[in-house]
Amino acid sequence: MRALGIGLIGTGFMGRAHALAFNNARTVFELPVNVQLAALADADTERAQRCASAWGFAQAHGDWQQLIDDPQVDLVAITTPNHLHYPMAMAALAAGKAVYCEKPLAVSLEQADAMRRAARAAGVVTRVGYNYQHNPMIVLARQMIEAGELGQIISFQGEFSEDFMADPTSPWSWRCEVGHAGGALADLGSHLLAMARYLVGDITHVCADSQTVHAQRPASPGSSQMRPIEIDDQVHALLRFTNGARGTVSSSWLKRGYKNHLSFEISGTRGTLAFDQERLNELRVCRAGADSFQRLLAGPTLPGYAAFSPAAGHQLGYNELKTLEVQELIMALAGQGAEGTDFEAAWAVERLATAIRMAAREERWVKVNEV
Amino acid sequence: MRALGIGLIGTGFMGRAHALAFNNARTVFELPVNVQLAALADADTERAQRCASAWGFAQAHGDWQQLIDDPQVDLVAITTPNHLHYPMAMAALAAGKAVYCEKPLAVSLEQADAMRRAARAAGVVTRVGYNYQHNPMIVLARQMIEAGELGQIISFQGEFSEDFMADPTSPWSWRCEVGHAGGALADLGSHLLAMARYLVGDITHVCADSQTVHAQRPASPGSSQMRPIEIDDQVHALLRFTNGARGTVSSSWLKRGYKNHLSFEISGTRGTLAFDQERLNELRVCRAGADSFQRLLAGPTLPGYAAFSPAAGHQLGYNELKTLEVQELIMALAGQGAEGTDFEAAWAVERLATAIRMAAREERWVKVNEV
Amino acid sequence: MRALGIGLIGTGFMGRAHALAFNNARTVFELPVNVQLAALADADTERAQRCASAWGFAQAHGDWQQLIDDPQVDLVAITTPNHLHYPMAMAALAAGKAVYCEKPLAVSLEQADAMRRAARAAGVVTRVGYNYQHNPMIVLARQMIEAGELGQIISFQGEFSEDFMADPTSPWSWRCEVGHAGGALADLGSHLLAMARYLVGDITHVCADSQTVHAQRPASPGSSQMRPIEIDDQVHALLRFTNGARGTVSSSWLKRGYKNHLSFEISGTRGTLAFDQERLNELRVCRAGADSFQRLLAGPTLPGYAAFSPAAGHQLGYNELKTLEVQELIMALAGQGAEGTDFEAAWAVERLATAIRMAAREERWVKVNEV
Amino acid sequence: MRALGIGLIGTGFMGRAHALAFNNARTVFELPVNVQLAALADADTERAQRCASAWGFAQAHGDWQQLIDDPQVDLVAITTPNHLHYPMAMAALAAGKAVYCEKPLAVSLEQADAMRRAARAAGVVTRVGYNYQHNPMIVLARQMIEAGELGQIISFQGEFSEDFMADPTSPWSWRCEVGHAGGALADLGSHLLAMARYLVGDITHVCADSQTVHAQRPASPGSSQMRPIEIDDQVHALLRFTNGARGTVSSSWLKRGYKNHLSFEISGTRGTLAFDQERLNELRVCRAGADSFQRLLAGPTLPGYAAFSPAAGHQLGYNELKTLEVQELIMALAGQGAEGTDFEAAWAVERLATAIRMAAREERWVKVNEV
Repeated sequence: MRALGIGLIGTGFMGRAHALAFNNARTVFELPVNVQLAALADADTERAQRCASAWGFAQAHGDWQQLIDDPQVDLVAITTPNHLHYPMAMAALAAGKAVYCEKPLAVSLEQADAMRRAARAAGVVTRVGYNYQHNPMIVLARQMIEAGELGQIISFQGEFSEDFMADPTSPWSWRCEVGHAGGALADLGSHLLAMARYLVGDITHVCADSQTVHAQRPASPGSSQMRPIEIDDQVHALLRFTNGARGTVSSSWLKRGYKNHLSFEISGTRGTLAFDQERLNELRVCRAGADSFQRLLAGPTLPGYAAFSPAAGHQLGYNELKTLEVQELIMALAGQGAEGTDFEAAWAVERLATAIRMAAREERWVKVNEV
Repeated sequence: MRALGIGLIGTGFMGRAHALAFNNARTVFELPVNVQLAALADADTERAQRCASAWGFAQAHGDWQQLIDDPQVDLVAITTPNHLHYPMAMAALAAGKAVYCEKPLAVSLEQADAMRRAARAAGVVTRVGYNYQHNPMIVLARQMIEAGELGQIISFQGEFSEDFMADPTSPWSWRCEVGHAGGALADLGSHLLAMARYLVGDITHVCADSQTVHAQRPASPGSSQMRPIEIDDQVHALLRFTNGARGTVSSSWLKRGYKNHLSFEISGTRGTLAFDQERLNELRVCRAGADSFQRLLAGPTLPGYAAFSPAAGHQLGYNELKTLEVQELIMALAGQGAEGTDFEAAWAVERLATAIRMAAREERWVKVNEV
Repeated sequence: MRALGIGLIGTGFMGRAHALAFNNARTVFELPVNVQLAALADADTERAQRCASAWGFAQAHGDWQQLIDDPQVDLVAITTPNHLHYPMAMAALAAGKAVYCEKPLAVSLEQADAMRRAARAAGVVTRVGYNYQHNPMIVLARQMIEAGELGQIISFQGEFSEDFMADPTSPWSWRCEVGHAGGALADLGSHLLAMARYLVGDITHVCADSQTVHAQRPASPGSSQMRPIEIDDQVHALLRFTNGARGTVSSSWLKRGYKNHLSFEISGTRGTLAFDQERLNELRVCRAGADSFQRLLAGPTLPGYAAFSPAAGHQLGYNELKTLEVQELIMALAGQGAEGTDFEAAWAVERLATAIRMAAREERWVKVNEV
Repeated sequence: MRALGIGLIGTGFMGRAHALAFNNARTVFELPVNVQLAALADADTERAQRCASAWGFAQAHGDWQQLIDDPQVDLVAITTPNHLHYPMAMAALAAGKAVYCEKPLAVSLEQADAMRRAARAAGVVTRVGYNYQHNPMIVLARQMIEAGELGQIISFQGEFSEDFMADPTSPWSWRCEVGHAGGALADLGSHLLAMARYLVGDITHVCADSQTVHAQRPASPGSSQMRPIEIDDQVHALLRFTNGARGTVSSSWLKRGYKNHLSFEISGTRGTLAFDQERLNELRVCRAGADSFQRLLAGPTLPGYAAFSPAAGHQLGYNELKTLEVQELIMALAGQGAEGTDFEAAWAVERLATAIRMAAREERWVKVNEV
């Protein structure tokens, strides 16, 4: 069986999540390749070594370029701060390596565009970490839509809200920087836009309204020095889809009580689907004829769930969605499966977010492909 | 105690709901006036007499003008089809009578404007049947907002969806006529717009998208002859409020599984409120500090609830909201209380709906007072 | 159409609820008799007169025996404190009048037994106010069970809990008296037992455990003088039904957060039903094949609901269940319909509660008909 | 850092779950010992080797006694069919090894008793896989109870129901055998009893009713030959706790719609807690003063959750509870932490289940320590 060497850059929470996911994918799935944890890179060499040892990586590097150049590395996984996605991915693509990059793809649409072009030119597999789409309940939702169980889709109403910035004394961070893909839309909303595209399809026109509610925040935790804030605390938008469906999306990081509220309702001529990621193992559906909502609970009839449990109702967690994402990526690298979000699709999400920002700024409907 | 003579026009479902509400208001509340069911009118004289007898009205009229002219009638309640609201209300106002009109106020903004001017000139009490606002949980929501429990309001996201037109073979009816205030926005959405205004305040700008999904429907039940449909099956809109809050509203009568889904979430800098009218005795709230949602259940600490039950959790139904609406109206007629939706406020709802239709048609943001 | 004269004893909350119900039944239903509010009795003559006038009764009496003797009175409705049910009902039966008595039927099983015998001897219609059974969703549940939709019923798990006595400083009241049918089992649990019998059938054996948690309470509100408490604050019991089903019931008035939590789950070989009275317009059901729960929402396919609203999701309230109870009673008086709880059935509930108390006291299984 | 060699017996679903859990515990936690996957045993030698390689174990054995004798093995983890728990655990204890055994501890109370005595004599750490207790929300529940947030606990009402045997054509399996700890009570109910003991404390008396609904099942899938069934399909019981609390437990594997419905409500004099394992990241709580239920969502203020995610609402899955169980076990082996279910506690659960069976058979209250 062919070996597949994984090179992981970054040792923060997402770095560890990747390490867990690659390890678990090997245990849980019968994979067509022999996944090897080849190398781990972190600017802090000592930390790189410690984590490599704890997480089972063969090599540790203090310099990410060395990791990319490492001949044992076939796939470069990038979990560093957003502004480093571009140089790292471009270098990996230049070296002909496959790339698995955390979202967002980049911190500007120009970067994202260059990255998808480079990926296309390199002809390698790329993936971006829109892991929520790998939830078996989301896969089920897509299958139901594709099978026509909802009829013609006419509406998508989505929201991704949390409350981690609700406290006005929450300090400035890179998430507040335009140049780091900050703001509620980029940070949270992009997941929702990716979901809308995955489930309903391309979006052609948008109109939007966005707002900075807290115009300044402490420069650092507890500081009395205030720093002005320019990015959006909340966004509301109207969407038109290629297939004729219409919809709304909202995103806020000020909405008290919500922790992971990526929710949507999809309405079709024959049924309605509802999902709330705070209960990620459930899906509510009303089919024509039933006249009422059913609560579907994840179970082993869904392959992604069956990999983890033979019994329904035992529930998957966030980290298992990451394992499912990694499995799809490995299958794609083995020439099987093509459901994941590649650089092309991730660029389309960035372009859509850019169109929404433009629509909000110019207070008008914007055609997405005019961006 | 002063007598207050009620004259009711219409004997359909809403007519009977008014009869129940006036009767129950007398039993349930200690009212400052002596409510008398003075007269009932229906074009079908025999029916008028039968219902008057069953419902306890002293007089029956086949001609509504006679009812208006009846000196025993102090308040004219109008529950006839929408296009008759205008002539009846105008006649009642001309006669100096107070008017209680079912929603919508009128079938055109011009009519509505004339009616509010006539009401102002007549100097009488007017009310329009936006009864959902009289739900004690909605009154509580407003009190919480006014008391600042949610901090500064930053977002209102609302929806009113049902599914009674979801079946494409549901035939044409007056609800499909522009000239009868038909369409999802006018029929359902107007309740939501009134709610947004009641809870958050005036709306200054709107942008919207609306759609006719089923472009034709059978001309009558079971008919093979199709009739073209011009009104909206669903509408999505963005709102800007005078106080700086932003929001979305959606309305559809095609959304399978929903029967009375007037729902909203109101987000403030200090808390979040959520309501779904399919569970009208509940309110979910997250206050700063609590970090999670509480489910409030209607109980006798709310005066509107206490009138009906001394114990929490026993629940009010739709008809009791109507009784509460009638009580507020009677209090207003007795010179007490001023919370209800009068012709001025109802006109503002109609103007807002008109602005939304204009925004959808012209594909642009519309300033509400340019309408 | 034959006249039916109603004589109502009692002007408290339940008295007013009866007045509302009789009034509304006349307006809402096409009844086969002409319901007349003939007389109202209250020991406080002035209050009797005031309420009679406000609620529309033709006569007022200070002495309830006069009301019973009143030839205009065909049906005697009793809403007085529990210990008065017996003398009033016995007098009414002796006068050959139909009787509508609030629950519990009596304050001892001996009284209840005498009452059902007297009712049988008098040959008149009797009803006891187990109004929760008239909820259209409960009627639907019974229809589903009778139609075999759940298969053979194997389990009933029920609870009726509230929290109105949870505060240990809540003072002594008649509800704490054995001789007034006090305690969580008699006050709340009897509704649940009646529901179990209505839905699943007769109960043959019981075993139980009961507890007085707060052994003394203030003699009156705010008093520092304590009064010993002997009745049960909570009860748990096992049940065996004639048809082979088994189950549990629990009742508590100390359970914080619950206001009207009469809930149950009924499990059959082909399906499961779940109900919670804090959402009385809903029923959750899982049928074989569906593999998941559906949320049914009350709507006009249910006759009891259709009487009040032509549209689903508009919800009935507590008082409307009372109106439905009154309608069934009137139909029974007109020789139609026989679904209500008569003195015989109410006695069976009292006997069951007595068996549960015996089982708890003697710490053993008790055969219900040994009581 | 001291090495800790893990020897795992069994390669089925639970074997793999253990492998995942040991691997993930190493990655997720900073452990005080160096966990080594030393050896894996399966009667099928080839399978043992294949799984050892895929899951990262250093050695593979076809004979479990060899694994126990392996000097690299410090801890023996047993995931084989129930009847093998006894011989394997006894051999491991005889060899002075720590033991981690899946539930149930044994297939008879005699075995369980011998095992806890052997464990006590050996003086080693033992654990039994009641992993649901390691759910951070359950740990939180216990902390709230211990901190007195609910006041004095007065009631525990629990249920563990699923529907995997609901279909009468589901064939006979070892789960239907008394001698394999089969039946709804042993298979499901034991988790619930362990939970009741963990949260509320020891149980002194029980009374119960149990039932075999489907008296025969196909001998094998699709077979027309029927095999008689003796074990319980459903059980209902009353409980009395040492601390004075009372309660009910129910367990069924016939209850349609439920997949993992281990649910309970705990009522105290100052509050109520409610949990349903089909939503294992949530806890509902009503505290005195709040007067309504709050929905708590798992987040990083809980250490067990924080290990997996820095953000609330991202949810843990079943497999992560297993990782938390393994972590506690490793901490105990390192001389830290003592929260887990050891052989002593697991024997107490078996004794309790035995008392419940006796109470059901003899139709009387049984004192648990008379068993």
